[in-house]
Amino acid sequence: MSKKKKSFRPKARLPRGFGDIHAHEVRTMANMIKKISEVYELYGFEPLETPALEFAECLGKFLPDADRPNEGVFALQDDDEQWMALRYDLTAPTARFVAENYDSLAKPFRRYQTGSVWRNEKPGPGRFRQFVQFDADTIGSNEMAADAELAMMWSDVMEALGIARGDYIIRMNNRKILDGVLDKINMLGDDDASVNTRLTVMRAMDKLDRLGSQGVRLLLGEGRKDESGDYTKGANLDEASIDKVIAFVEAGKATNKETLAALSQLIAGSEIGEAGIAELEEIGMLISSAGYNEDRICFDPSIVRGLGYYSGPVMEAELTFEIKDEKGRPVQFGSIGGGGRYDGLVARFKGIEIPATGISIGVSRLYAALEALGKHKASSVIPPIIILVMDKSERPAYQQMAVELRQAGIRSEVYMGSSGMKAQLKYADKRGAP
Amino acid sequence: MSKKKKSFRPKARLPRGFGDIHAHEVRTMANMIKKISEVYELYGFEPLETPALEFAECLGKFLPDADRPNEGVFALQDDDEQWMALRYDLTAPTARFVAENYDSLAKPFRRYQTGSVWRNEKPGPGRFRQFVQFDADTIGSNEMAADAELAMMWSDVMEALGIARGDYIIRMNNRKILDGVLDKINMLGDDDASVNTRLTVMRAMDKLDRLGSQGVRLLLGEGRKDESGDYTKGANLDEASIDKVIAFVEAGKATNKETLAALSQLIAGSEIGEAGIAELEEIGMLISSAGYNEDRICFDPSIVRGLGYYSGPVMEAELTFEIKDEKGRPVQFGSIGGGGRYDGLVARFKGIEIPATGISIGVSRLYAALEALGKHKASSVIPPIIILVMDKSERPAYQQMAVELRQAGIRSEVYMGSSGMKAQLKYADKRGAP
Repeated sequence: MSKKKKSFRPKARLPRGFGDIHAHEVRTMANMIKKISEVYELYGFEPLETPALEFAECLGKFLPDADRPNEGVFALQDDDEQWMALRYDLTAPTARFVAENYDSLAKPFRRYQTGSVWRNEKPGPGRFRQFVQFDADTIGSNEMAADAELAMMWSDVMEALGIARGDYIIRMNNRKILDGVLDKINMLGDDDASVNTRLTVMRAMDKLDRLGSQGVRLLLGEGRKDESGDYTKGANLDEASIDKVIAFVEAGKATNKETLAALSQLIAGSEIGEAGIAELEEIGMLISSAGYNEDRICFDPSIVRGLGYYSGPVMEAELTFEIKDEKGRPVQFGSIGGGGRYDGLVARFKGIEIPATGISIGVSRLYAALEALGKHKASSVIPPIIILVMDKSERPAYQQMAVELRQAGIRSEVYMGSSGMKAQLKYADKRGAP
Repeated sequence: MSKKKKSFRPKARLPRGFGDIHAHEVRTMANMIKKISEVYELYGFEPLETPALEFAECLGKFLPDADRPNEGVFALQDDDEQWMALRYDLTAPTARFVAENYDSLAKPFRRYQTGSVWRNEKPGPGRFRQFVQFDADTIGSNEMAADAELAMMWSDVMEALGIARGDYIIRMNNRKILDGVLDKINMLGDDDASVNTRLTVMRAMDKLDRLGSQGVRLLLGEGRKDESGDYTKGANLDEASIDKVIAFVEAGKATNKETLAALSQLIAGSEIGEAGIAELEEIGMLISSAGYNEDRICFDPSIVRGLGYYSGPVMEAELTFEIKDEKGRPVQFGSIGGGGRYDGLVARFKGIEIPATGISIGVSRLYAALEALGKHKASSVIPPIIILVMDKSERPAYQQMAVELRQAGIRSEVYMGSSGMKAQLKYADKRGAP
């Protein structure tokens, strides 16, 4: 019966960019997720889960008239030919959920959700195509208090995970202030050329920490050749505009108040820019009166965030301590998640705009960072007592011992193999049995 | 900028057979998973996680020379044209994992794993295309003690979930005894006709609880027309063979010993059948000496289990209490999971046979059953204290109150919307705030 099958022997392996998660990591991740949940619950957020597959059009990365879905997601066709895709974040499914259930929800709707997301991208070292995020969102509020709350909650999460104050920072900015700068250099136009230049400018700003202001200058101007010789075309701004953009990304000061004062000057006269300043001022007032100072949440004009849907405050969490890799070189982990206000995302479905703001913690990334640092607490899991099988005919008695140990709450097992004493001792050793 | 997007408005909805999971269910499922983990841990099993996507050929439902994968799974092609698929259970990925990491594992390898699985099948009421399973497997042991342990552990899991003894039962059988009966009616041949008839016979046996022995008789003979007029072709056995098969599925007695004695008579003379009896005898001895009697684990010859890869003991867990649906009609939940020995599954990769046995608890199904029964404990989650916003300019003070409450461990939130007192009270009401 199985002769035909035996002739084909598949290789036991995973597709690129996917990995198995072993016991230590499963337990540590579960513990992290428990701790994050506890903080979110304490703030009054409620859990939600959405399925892994959604209609591709609901995820919003797709043009409705395109034949094939975007390369960045894992997509497949249902039997009625409709495209479905594995979610690439937890925000788009939540927007779909809120639009679908809007009338029955308590508003503002505040939910948290954790789970895997999938990106059909080129994998690399530490870059996986499946990873875990943990989000919290407030939907249906345009109050800056909602954004301030998320930043404070994130700070609490970091400390609940055992990351000391000073070892992390939540950086905040506002897309409207960014727009204010673009406004000042006359780049808020709706035409395709303006939209493209704006994207190039934002990408350049986002590279300040990697390339420094000289590198960003080149990208804002004609372009930049990197060490490997690759050339990136620039935004072709004039010198005066470049000066303004550079002044903006470097406007961060020691205190949030001073940063806002510096930004205020740079965007003075731009209506959208001034609206952004007023929003950050309100957030600044709310967080400082709640006792969250610049050592936890700081305003940083260099924070851009890649996603196109952000429309107001944006934030990013960073681990600030330095660690060394195996070769002794310093390693920066950088961002372990981001968030911000996305007032337009639910509007895709509803037609009317529903204000929303959220954060997304990269749990897999954070796990890897803390693991590399040896910052995870030693596992509290006690290895089982392993009852060796000296005499096979006595299995019932060994089994009875295990039953009694378990009734006393003691983790234990009878050796389940058929091998002799040497193999059994090796097994007990491998399992770390006491 | 967003004008083009606004012209297309996707409908906010999920593909058929997928559902969102709301707060109460998320919390209850998490609690169930915690309780199941605790029992598995107590028995010395270790956690493992595998990714959602695997190479389709590793999942084993695929013929290597077929152009398109089987309809029962969600499959897609990677950019190098290789077929990947969402896992349809947790057993096949574990077999792949063990084959890939065999040399480095402590053997027998005992792991537990929970997570979603996906079936690309026609959805229906209560039938989803994504659901959660929770498995435990022992790989690398051909001892019946491993099968006995899983049955006992499952019984412990049911009671840890608050299901009283008598409200559930673990039913066990052995594929080898089944083969013994087929042997007695000369149907163990390797030719295609025998294989097909065997399948038809097994499907017929599996329907005993739904159709009764008269219905099974028809399916073992010429065929059966159901109430809707649909005709199912039968196995075309002769009367004597039908009698033997019916005697077999009805051989269950009050005690495991009596059942084994009855089965022994039926398959006497068949080598494979007698091997199966000996295996169940050993399991019976092990479980009764550990204090697990027929009220928890009972031998039941009508248990067949659909999966083709089982090769020895098989088991199934059932909720035995009766409940009524909305219209007052009695509802039977039937199986909430199954398991058994699958000695050939790892061999697909390794060439050499590696004995294995496992159980798979259908957590989503079990949740639905307990929910319908009102058997879930009332949620222990306390609704948050909601601080109403009487005066917007006082937000910092309200925020400060929330910070203090949280520092005291009290779940609390400031109302995050901009609406007036009436809407705020409605919100607090909807959230169940004290």
